[in-house]
This record gives sequence, structure tokens and C-alpha cells, in this order.
Amino acid sequence: MKAESELPAARDKLLFTPGPLTTSLSVKQAMLHDAGSWHYEFNAKVNWVREKILEVAGLSIKAGWEAILMQGSGTFGVEAVFATCVPPNGKVMVLANGAYGERIVVMLQRLHIEHVVLRTQENTPIDAGALDRALAADKTVTHVAIVHCETTTGILNPVSEVGRVVKRHGRAYVVDAMSSFGAMPIDFAGAGIDFLISSANKCIEGVPGFSFVICRREALLGCDGYARSLSLDLLDQLKGFEKNGQFRYTPPTHAILAFEQALQELDLEGGIAGRGARYRANHETLLDGMKQLGFRPYLDPAVQSYIITSFHYPASEKFTFGAFYRGLSEKGFIIYPGKISQANTFRIGSIGRIFPGDIEGLLSAVRIVLGEMGLD
Amino acid sequence: MKAESELPAARDKLLFTPGPLTTSLSVKQAMLHDAGSWHYEFNAKVNWVREKILEVAGLSIKAGWEAILMQGSGTFGVEAVFATCVPPNGKVMVLANGAYGERIVVMLQRLHIEHVVLRTQENTPIDAGALDRALAADKTVTHVAIVHCETTTGILNPVSEVGRVVKRHGRAYVVDAMSSFGAMPIDFAGAGIDFLISSANKCIEGVPGFSFVICRREALLGCDGYARSLSLDLLDQLKGFEKNGQFRYTPPTHAILAFEQALQELDLEGGIAGRGARYRANHETLLDGMKQLGFRPYLDPAVQSYIITSFHYPASEKFTFGAFYRGLSEKGFIIYPGKISQANTFRIGSIGRIFPGDIEGLLSAVRIVLGEMGLD
Repeated sequence: MKAESELPAARDKLLFTPGPLTTSLSVKQAMLHDAGSWHYEFNAKVNWVREKILEVAGLSIKAGWEAILMQGSGTFGVEAVFATCVPPNGKVMVLANGAYGERIVVMLQRLHIEHVVLRTQENTPIDAGALDRALAADKTVTHVAIVHCETTTGILNPVSEVGRVVKRHGRAYVVDAMSSFGAMPIDFAGAGIDFLISSANKCIEGVPGFSFVICRREALLGCDGYARSLSLDLLDQLKGFEKNGQFRYTPPTHAILAFEQALQELDLEGGIAGRGARYRANHETLLDGMKQLGFRPYLDPAVQSYIITSFHYPASEKFTFGAFYRGLSEKGFIIYPGKISQANTFRIGSIGRIFPGDIEGLLSAVRIVLGEMGLD
Repeated sequence: MKAESELPAARDKLLFTPGPLTTSLSVKQAMLHDAGSWHYEFNAKVNWVREKILEVAGLSIKAGWEAILMQGSGTFGVEAVFATCVPPNGKVMVLANGAYGERIVVMLQRLHIEHVVLRTQENTPIDAGALDRALAADKTVTHVAIVHCETTTGILNPVSEVGRVVKRHGRAYVVDAMSSFGAMPIDFAGAGIDFLISSANKCIEGVPGFSFVICRREALLGCDGYARSLSLDLLDQLKGFEKNGQFRYTPPTHAILAFEQALQELDLEGGIAGRGARYRANHETLLDGMKQLGFRPYLDPAVQSYIITSFHYPASEKFTFGAFYRGLSEKGFIIYPGKISQANTFRIGSIGRIFPGDIEGLLSAVRIVLGEMGLD
């Protein structure tokens, strides 16, 4: 008998990861077309996508907002914001409690942008009070950066509370909302957000290939001449769209066609509220089931997002993540390794085109694999 | 009766552009799958793709070469090379005879890398003799950059002849082979190439989403600490692949699955020789037909590539490019506007999954549209 891995599969393994995610077949089928990146029909789609992102965010061009698509992964979008928008004498205060906050720090090092880091533990949300004191003490900080949902752990940071502090001190506010935008409401005006970055292959349930930046138009227009990169020049990218509706450089046309379809399917689900409700149901099903199987979540429920959940390894020496991962993979379920520096954990995502029934399937597989490992 | 544009079409318009191109249905169908970017099955595909690119180039890891994939368009790959590989006190000599050479100049400005430009006219290949004299006169130049096929016009630059001059002077050699790699033989060793950049959506006939850099491993390893960007750090990208087989940041998984299929279809066609023969046949069919219709090519045949061809506008005042373009689009053919600074031209590409029969279809449509414009 042939092993399963030697024969083409009937269907894809389900992805319980922070992205790329499992997407609908209709989203993928939208990629069965070759579009001309200079052509007016494609440009009309790009324009629709840009306006629709703002609509999802509860914003509009009329109210002074822009949505700018940027080729590459989410990290490219985050770097584009800093590379374009921090003046030569600017200084960024990075609020970090995980790998994605730390990635911003490395980015600023490479870009030779002055910065300071305010850290909390990986299981502790950013402290708005500490930020208040730090900003009062350092008048040279021009920008404050935060990660909304740190997928390192799945922790949720208080973007609105932090934003009010940032604005009281009159600084610019950059939010990495990679894994939350589209499934969690974000109060842009109330939080005083100037730049927010997310990605096509997260909660909008498109495929990877580009990120997008939602920003106040005036904040971006004020950054002329700062760009430290051509490819990642966000202002030049906006000027390109406004000049002729086109990307300056070849866009991932197929990923954009998929995203157009994904945005329509977000509407179909009832927008952010509907999608958030499904992800929350996924998360609750997961948490209940994993607890019943004896797993212990890493985070306090009060700070746990419904995006992705970290679990401690079982105490038994019989458990190895490699065998656990491979066992689940062979049953059609892909989970994610941990990324926490001070604890042995693995992660299971609740986002993408998966439903509570799929979570139940995963839980059954976890039970079986634990048995195979001698961990009943 | 409904207009054609108001109803869904039976098939996509054919793209006679420099990319994104028309691809095979089987390449697009490879994207009907969601792959986990951390998963070992996907990583094995990435590894296969990296080795296969080298095989297509006639190179190997064993012989000291690497192929590194980089998210984003081709421009991101070109910028990654300069941002990563030029030392702080380095200086780049850019050989420019079109928009893509000039784009490298702007890139170097943004990156604050010292540079000098050696220009020839847009219809004139780069002059190896002039380069020889310039390098002899300026010992501070560390890198020389050239565009193989300048799609601004379709002109072919003498990469081997230029490369021999570069190597005689002991400088590093960077070749932008965006629109030629995969359809034209390139003698890496003979030309002394250190870094060559191409893109997924060109002659390999994949879809857009990433570029790739072929480089001498030693040349890249010598660049530790130079990177001016995190996302575009080519050396860090290589280290990521070598550490765990993964991209550092989310890859365009679907575009990579498409590229895997595209590489297999390149083999099926007989590799670079087979593909080059088809493109050449496309180009010759196009050139003959357009001449018969009274169009005049912009370039001298001796320097004209079979990748893309520029044609002068007809002399008649009845001709406008907008009406010509739209007329062809309505008949299912997408051509490309000109990009030449000193002449009114448009461009027609010969690359992608198109055949001489498709070129004949385009020519018939051109004849009809000219008639509609009163230009018989």
C-alpha cells in the first residue's frame, strides 16, 4: 500500500496558523485569470479594493483617509511605513511584548532610524501609564509603534488606550494590526491612529502577496523626501495610484483578484462583526476542547485574543512538538510552533476559512495523536 | 443588446506586454491550494524551486551559486541586491539606456549609495569601450550594473562583452535580466556575473509575487552587515532558507506553487532553447506582420530582442494610442504603451503563453482597428 504522502491528496490540509490561512475555494478560483497590470479594467479593481478597505475600516477618502497596497508580505508594509514616514531627525518609541514588536526594532536599526524600546513581558499587555511617563520624559520621540494582536502569544494590546496617551503627547501613532484587522473593530479616530498596517492573507482571508497601509492622507503627504527605499516608498506608491490608477511596479495581479473576491465574501459574512463572531466561536471551541484534553493556555483569558492561542507543552517527557506536529499533519491539520522566548508552547490559530466543526475535527485528531504518543 | 464589457467573458484577453504575462491554465490551477508557509511539504517545494532555477541557469549550489527568492516585484529584487551588497563606502556605476537603468539610479539615490551613470541613447546598446575607459579613470567604483533586455525599447545590451570589461577591472557585476532570463542563454561564468535578478512573471511564465536573485555564494556572504533594509536583506533571506528551509517573512505561497508548475512546463518546452525558439517565432511573425501593415519598428534589427518590440506611431493624425489600445482590448488583445522619452511609440511583447497563431490573431485585430480609425 502506498503511504498517503506518496499520492496526490483529495483536499488541502487545514491551516490553524496565523497566516497564510485556509481560504475559500472561490477566493482561489478568482486567481484563474491573467490580468494586465496596466489595463484599465484591472486598475478599476485596484481602485475598488482600496476604497473597500477603507469602508471595512469605517473610513473614507472623503474623511481624509487612504488605503495603499504594497507588494510583499506584511513585514514589507510595516517597513514601508517607517522607511517613508519618519523624518531624518525622527525617533520611534517601540512598544514591544513579542517577536513582532522586536522585528520593528531590527527594522529601525537597519534603516538607521533612532529609536527606543518600551518592553513588557510576553504575557503582559503594553502599559499605557508607563508610556505616558516615557513620553513625558522624552520630547524627542516623534512616533510610537505598537502591535495590536501579538501573534507571538496571541495577546491583545490596548491600542485605543495607548493611542489616547500618544495623542495627548502629540506624537504620530503607528499600529501593526496584521492579524486583527478585518475581524476586530478598531476605532481609528478614537485611538488617534495615523498609520495602520495589515495584510491580504490574514482576517480578510485573501492570499499572500501584498500588505496594505491605512493612513491619514495629510500624515503621509507630510513625509515627502524622507523615503529610505524606492520599492518601499509609500508616498510614491500613493502618487502612482493617483497619477494613473496603477502600481508603480508590477503588482501581484492574481493575489489582488483573490482579495477582491475575499472582500466580497467578508461582506457576505456580515463584515467585521460577522467574521469576528465566527473566529470567536472557533477560539472558544478550541479553548474548551484543549482544556478538556489537559492542555493549559499560556495567556490569562483577560488578555487573550480570539485570533491565535498559545498552549504549554504537556509536562510529560513523552511529548515532543515534532512528533505532535507530524501526527496532526498526517491527519490533515497544520498547527504552528511556539515563538515565546521563556516557555515551551505551540500555537493554534482560529482564523481563515475554518469553522467550529473544523476545530472539532482538529480536537479529535489531537486526542488520537496524544494516544499514539502514549499520552492519554 | 448588452455590451461585451457588461457580461462576464468566456476567456481572458491575451497579454502582449512585458509582464505580468498570459500564463497556462495549469500554472494558474496550481494556485488552487493553500499551503502552510512553515510546513515541511511546502518548504521542500521552495527548496526544489531554488535548485531548479540554478539548473535552468546552467549552475549549481555545488559550483558555488545560490538562487534566492524575494517577495515583491522584480524591482524589489533589484533593490535588495544593492541594499544588501554594496558596502558603506561602495560606489555603483550604472549603465543606462532606458527606464529600468534609470530606475536603478533612483534606487541608489534613495539608499544613499554613491553612484555614477554612464548613458547611451535609448536606441543604442551600452558601449563596452566607454565603460573600459570610465573604470580605468575611476578606481572607486566597486559595482557595475546593467539591464540585459531594456524593455523600455526592447533593446539587448551586450552583457558578456561588458562583463569581461568589468572583470578585467576587478569590480562586482550586477545584471538585471528581468525580462530575458529563461528565454535567452546567459553565460554566467564567461560574463563574470556576481548577481543576476529576474522575476517569476517573466519568461519562466509564472505569476507575479516574487523575484529571484542568482548569485555567487561567496559574493553574497561577504556582504554581512551592509544591509540597509530588513525586508530586502538578501543575505538574511539566504540565512533563513539555510536555517530551516523557510522564508523569514510570509511568502506568496500560491505564486510559488504556480512557479513550481511553470518550471516543469519550461522543461516540457525544452528549457531555454525551446522557449527562446517560440518567442523568436512570435517576434518574427509580429515584425513581418506589422511591417506589412505599414508600422515601423523603433530599433535597428541588430540590437532588437525577441522579448518585446517598440513601433513608431503611424504618421497620420487619425491615430491616437488611446483609441488603438481600446480597440484592440475590445477584440481581446492587450498591448503596451511606449516608455521612450524621445519618440512616440507603443510596445508589443512576444513572451508568455502565446504562440505565433495568437500573434496572427493580434495582427488581424490591428488591421481591423486601423480600418475603424480610418487608417487603411
